[in-house]
Amino acid sequence: MDNSLLERIVKPSLLLDEDKARANIHSMAEKARQSNVIFRPHFKTHQAREIGSWFRDEGVCNITVSSVDMAEYFVEAGWEDITIAFPVNIRQIQQIQTLAKRFRLSLLVEDVETLNFLGANLKNEVSIWVKVDCGLHRSGIPYDRPELVGELMQTASKFPHLPIVGLLTHAGNTYASHSKEEILHIHYETNQRMRHLRDIQSTPGLKLSIGDTPGCSLVDSFTGVDEIRPGNFVFYDAEQWELGSCHDSQVAVALACPVVSVHPDRNEVVLYGGAVHFSKEIFIHSGKPILGFQVEMNGSGWSNILPECSLVRLSQEHGVLSVPGTRIHTYHPGDIVLIIPAHSCLSAHLMRRYLTLRGKTIEMMPV
Amino acid sequence: MDNSLLERIVKPSLLLDEDKARANIHSMAEKARQSNVIFRPHFKTHQAREIGSWFRDEGVCNITVSSVDMAEYFVEAGWEDITIAFPVNIRQIQQIQTLAKRFRLSLLVEDVETLNFLGANLKNEVSIWVKVDCGLHRSGIPYDRPELVGELMQTASKFPHLPIVGLLTHAGNTYASHSKEEILHIHYETNQRMRHLRDIQSTPGLKLSIGDTPGCSLVDSFTGVDEIRPGNFVFYDAEQWELGSCHDSQVAVALACPVVSVHPDRNEVVLYGGAVHFSKEIFIHSGKPILGFQVEMNGSGWSNILPECSLVRLSQEHGVLSVPGTRIHTYHPGDIVLIIPAHSCLSAHLMRRYLTLRGKTIEMMPV
Repeated sequence: MDNSLLERIVKPSLLLDEDKARANIHSMAEKARQSNVIFRPHFKTHQAREIGSWFRDEGVCNITVSSVDMAEYFVEAGWEDITIAFPVNIRQIQQIQTLAKRFRLSLLVEDVETLNFLGANLKNEVSIWVKVDCGLHRSGIPYDRPELVGELMQTASKFPHLPIVGLLTHAGNTYASHSKEEILHIHYETNQRMRHLRDIQSTPGLKLSIGDTPGCSLVDSFTGVDEIRPGNFVFYDAEQWELGSCHDSQVAVALACPVVSVHPDRNEVVLYGGAVHFSKEIFIHSGKPILGFQVEMNGSGWSNILPECSLVRLSQEHGVLSVPGTRIHTYHPGDIVLIIPAHSCLSAHLMRRYLTLRGKTIEMMPV
Repeated sequence: MDNSLLERIVKPSLLLDEDKARANIHSMAEKARQSNVIFRPHFKTHQAREIGSWFRDEGVCNITVSSVDMAEYFVEAGWEDITIAFPVNIRQIQQIQTLAKRFRLSLLVEDVETLNFLGANLKNEVSIWVKVDCGLHRSGIPYDRPELVGELMQTASKFPHLPIVGLLTHAGNTYASHSKEEILHIHYETNQRMRHLRDIQSTPGLKLSIGDTPGCSLVDSFTGVDEIRPGNFVFYDAEQWELGSCHDSQVAVALACPVVSVHPDRNEVVLYGGAVHFSKEIFIHSGKPILGFQVEMNGSGWSNILPECSLVRLSQEHGVLSVPGTRIHTYHPGDIVLIIPAHSCLSAHLMRRYLTLRGKTIEMMPV
């Protein structure tokens, strides 16, 4: 990181190492190619057209988003095959209808009521994925309730413009894992449950779509599924590092925060960088809740994670960094400290723009 | 709440009951008047010029903000006496100097190094408050280290344009209280510590500024201090209700969220409304971590809090509402559910705009 970039930073700024992000994209795209599965990355992590173009450079032409508004934003950048991986919000039916006219839109459905509503209110063809819950217990039909999938199939048969193309799940329960082995176990168990659910349907040719960053990062190849949809891997973060999904050298974003006060009496440094910059996402490290880890600037960007220098408390604008007594006297008001956030998706969402190590500002979609 | 307003809501929207917010402002302003203290409300909660004007209607002419950028935003709306209640970020010295030329600016300082920097770099007069830590352990000089305050006084005497006007604290440790009595105890203990610290200084005439919403809400009057700076009270929220700082009828904001899926098997409703709408702030209710409580729409706005209907998990865009089995069949995809967020400041910060019950949109400062 050069001095001219450092001098530009006067308040909390989200630094982005473009080379690392591009390498993360390349690595996942290559694994998908080798496994012969469709790579449909989730763009909710970065929410930026320019970063989207880095995926296009890797041959990606299908994407996932988490909202109707996000689909509208990316379609303006020329994306023509978008899955909104969120249970359909029928109150946005007018926007959905407008989108369906313009490009290949896929929606997630998990109940007959919603499917009937779409059947009656959409005029253009939309691909339907049945959302399946393989253990996260957020949304979706439980994997062990095949009769509910059957009911959806039967309902869909009334609507030729709403073909059910496959079964889709998000194994976000990998985030609660305590080891790489546990992540891989959930990954394979999820795939097995999805294949079984597909195989017992009377409708042939259903596709399977999966995708959580921990599972997709740790497997050597994708087998038995047709599509992957990870998102976070483009940046990774402290939580993914803790989970073992990535090496710390792969983490592509860090929040640059000015030091505003130093407390040698309690070995804590107060940063300008709070809940409105990091989010309040925590993860557990060595039994303690952590909001981020420090890294140190170096010539090419930043160092590996310093787990002994951890963000331990956040209020709206303040962050409290706990450091060893041997380091406390190296911090001074006005210094810039780099922190790898717990959850890069939420931190990026709050920051709304990136500053690349080459000094370029990349804006995210408006909120 | 009338139907025409309800029909406008197609995605998560932050509803604001203007009458309740104005009543909250009036109540705190009146208590400050009766107690003969300066009311300098913290505007970080609402971050909106229009809501600022509601304070002006109550005779408020001094305000608190949490960042240099927020001071810049409110000075454009004619506010001329602003305290930036955050340890000075010396990297923003150019912006601070520009602000100091335009209006009466007050800054918080807690170390000699920063005070010397300001002395050398600011040309216009700026009032300095010494930040004191009365038990929150975030920023400030510990209340039992009077010699550090003395050092600052001595340093400030070199800079006639940087008069130290008083001692300032934020008793945010009230947020960890378990009863009204404990909040009041912390409030009175904080005031006592501040008065003692002031009384043992050789400099006469130092003012005292305090201000946390729980303490300021629960006392009948303010005694022994010169200024109060609460912020959250303008809206209150579920956490303040849990603490006992307010009645639920005083909470002035609710997040309107579309229902996207219903799970009778586990008595849970999935809402379009996640960490990017609520923040991940939690508080403990009956031993469990809670992110918000449901209220029900009624003719005038919304009902009292339904503690049995609580927001229990959030991911980026999804919220999971836990409800009694007797109610689960009353929820349908496309319904709007109103949730009182755990922390209104963070939820407002994420939402960036309000929709008042009279149907008006109020924008917040840009990020």
